[in-house]
Amino acid sequence: MSDKPLSGVRVLDLTRVLAGPYCTMVLFDLGAEVIKVEAKTGDDARGFGPFLNGKSGYFLSLNRGKRSIALDLKDDEDRAIFERLLAHTDVLVENYRPGTMEKLGYGFDALHKRFPRLIYAAASGFGHTGPYREKAAYDMVVQGMGGIMSLTGHPGSPPTRVGTSVGDITAGLFTTIGINAALYQRAQTGLGTKIDVAMLDCQIAILENAIARYFATGQVPGPMGARHPSITPFEVFATGDGYMVIAAGNDGLFRRLAETLNEPGLAEDERFASNDARTRNVEALKAELESRLAAHTTAEWITALEAAGVPCSPINTVADALADPQVLHRNMVVSVEDPVAGTVRMAGNPIKISGMPDATTRPPAPDLDGDRAAILADLARLEAN
Amino acid sequence: MSDKPLSGVRVLDLTRVLAGPYCTMVLFDLGAEVIKVEAKTGDDARGFGPFLNGKSGYFLSLNRGKRSIALDLKDDEDRAIFERLLAHTDVLVENYRPGTMEKLGYGFDALHKRFPRLIYAAASGFGHTGPYREKAAYDMVVQGMGGIMSLTGHPGSPPTRVGTSVGDITAGLFTTIGINAALYQRAQTGLGTKIDVAMLDCQIAILENAIARYFATGQVPGPMGARHPSITPFEVFATGDGYMVIAAGNDGLFRRLAETLNEPGLAEDERFASNDARTRNVEALKAELESRLAAHTTAEWITALEAAGVPCSPINTVADALADPQVLHRNMVVSVEDPVAGTVRMAGNPIKISGMPDATTRPPAPDLDGDRAAILADLARLEAN
Repeated sequence: MSDKPLSGVRVLDLTRVLAGPYCTMVLFDLGAEVIKVEAKTGDDARGFGPFLNGKSGYFLSLNRGKRSIALDLKDDEDRAIFERLLAHTDVLVENYRPGTMEKLGYGFDALHKRFPRLIYAAASGFGHTGPYREKAAYDMVVQGMGGIMSLTGHPGSPPTRVGTSVGDITAGLFTTIGINAALYQRAQTGLGTKIDVAMLDCQIAILENAIARYFATGQVPGPMGARHPSITPFEVFATGDGYMVIAAGNDGLFRRLAETLNEPGLAEDERFASNDARTRNVEALKAELESRLAAHTTAEWITALEAAGVPCSPINTVADALADPQVLHRNMVVSVEDPVAGTVRMAGNPIKISGMPDATTRPPAPDLDGDRAAILADLARLEAN
Repeated sequence: MSDKPLSGVRVLDLTRVLAGPYCTMVLFDLGAEVIKVEAKTGDDARGFGPFLNGKSGYFLSLNRGKRSIALDLKDDEDRAIFERLLAHTDVLVENYRPGTMEKLGYGFDALHKRFPRLIYAAASGFGHTGPYREKAAYDMVVQGMGGIMSLTGHPGSPPTRVGTSVGDITAGLFTTIGINAALYQRAQTGLGTKIDVAMLDCQIAILENAIARYFATGQVPGPMGARHPSITPFEVFATGDGYMVIAAGNDGLFRRLAETLNEPGLAEDERFASNDARTRNVEALKAELESRLAAHTTAEWITALEAAGVPCSPINTVADALADPQVLHRNMVVSVEDPVAGTVRMAGNPIKISGMPDATTRPPAPDLDGDRAAILADLARLEAN
């Protein structure tokens, strides 16, 4: 018996591109079996670069370990296969525009009548209710609408996108939470439920203290460059050869920082004596700190500040981050041996669970319809039992 | 019987500040009962602004609906209470520095022997294994180390923090996924497991296509301002009175965009005839589009482009986002009536589940130790059964 928490859970995955496939990737990593049902033209992401011997590295990393069958859900024979699969499915996941599944006759209400244990999860741009429900959304659309872009960047700079698709990914994560909670609930009740997650809603859910600040003060928060709005010093600082993060927000850490900079008097200066005072005088403090930090390199300061127990870090590139000893120790870079693309490296699973194997490799992503025969053979076996 | 998926699940919450409390906030929204075990000095976040009649709006929004008991886990009497609570707990969540719980005698191995059904979830900066396991981390430290800051901002600008604490929040979300999966697993096996989630690992897990691009090409990705790296046009554009997002990445949408701008020839121009060509000529395309977009306001273009079915959006402020009709329809702004702070508004639950009530209000956050008597009375009842 497997030690993975979702061992035995069968997922039928109608999703494309990012939010949905990210969700089912996490479900796979936790032990679920994922059958990717693709249109005859395949997931659009198969066409997204970068390419490795003609195969999409983007698609490969999101769809590792899944199996693929191509079905035309308007074709009677394919619909029959789809419905036979549904009868042996625990979780259906889709990220179509709302209403699409209903038009196909596969909306939650219809499916719930036939398959009462089926959990139905939908990740969409704006959700299955409300005035925007029929609109299309992409990551950048919800980053723009949801407020996060208004908080990101330097004051006065043009709007700045978060450098990774947090619009899609957070929707994928909240959908995954909903699915797991629904599996737990079904273990008690025997009944499946519908999960309806909207990318825009998830952007609101991650605004955190910007909401509290706005409602408390009526002031609209803006971008703050690279500093924390209310903890100081908690920011990026220039050093002799670049930049670094220093996060010394309480008085004890600030004192240690001042001592490491050989300027213990900073901690006695009334402008900097408390977090509140430091936050009011954030620009003056930054000038004081940077005048000292200019004397040495980022690497030298990291060594000195770590020795003093002051939280700090370099601004790593993606290359640095992926070569970091802690990241590698935690098995956060795993690899796939793809028969065409070769060795493909990608992010591992950040949910480490006692007793759960955390392999350093993953099975490859499927070719379009590449597992039809195996999926149908498995289905026949399930039906015979 | 409640229709919430985690109804009946009892959570003992040792977490402070953001990552852990965010996780247990989601668990509460899904129906769990959360007992917050605080040090006698209380969660540090009680001291974080903004303040409403002296109470932290930051703390209130993350801890709505939880109950509080103050326990000194080095005091024998309090330890006895803690252990009695553990005997009736499904999920323990902590975000101490690794090793802290072991020193208290409450590491997973020790607890698992006494309480084999207990699920133990730890969210920490670097995880419970590896060379950095004893280091402290904060959101900005892992944003710096994990690579996301190197992808965020405009080329040539100083490093830019993502404007919300994605380092904490993604760790909270992955921990929540792990807990729900562990609950499902326990329903099959009867045994609890340990979940070990590191903020840094989660930053790697959300780098998405930057990893594929780096490993495929060897080129280190940098910040790209407000555009998508490989889909074009998918970017922020200047208009007559500000900025807007236009996401017209496929040929059909690009044609509709060109027609709406009254320049259908753009879609015939060989520089812009395919996504690949548009991405190669992204700067030339931006100049062409902005020269047309300058003629009207953002609001006018949104109306016209939406009529044409081209995905687009304004760059909303937090105030705009929180007043958006779809956001309000989806109940993504809920309120708490706090006896001291008054009406406090905060983000709702983005996981909408069929049959699950989605109240427009939440119970208040607890005062420090404010529920001691009720918690102990409940415990006595549980022990008597």
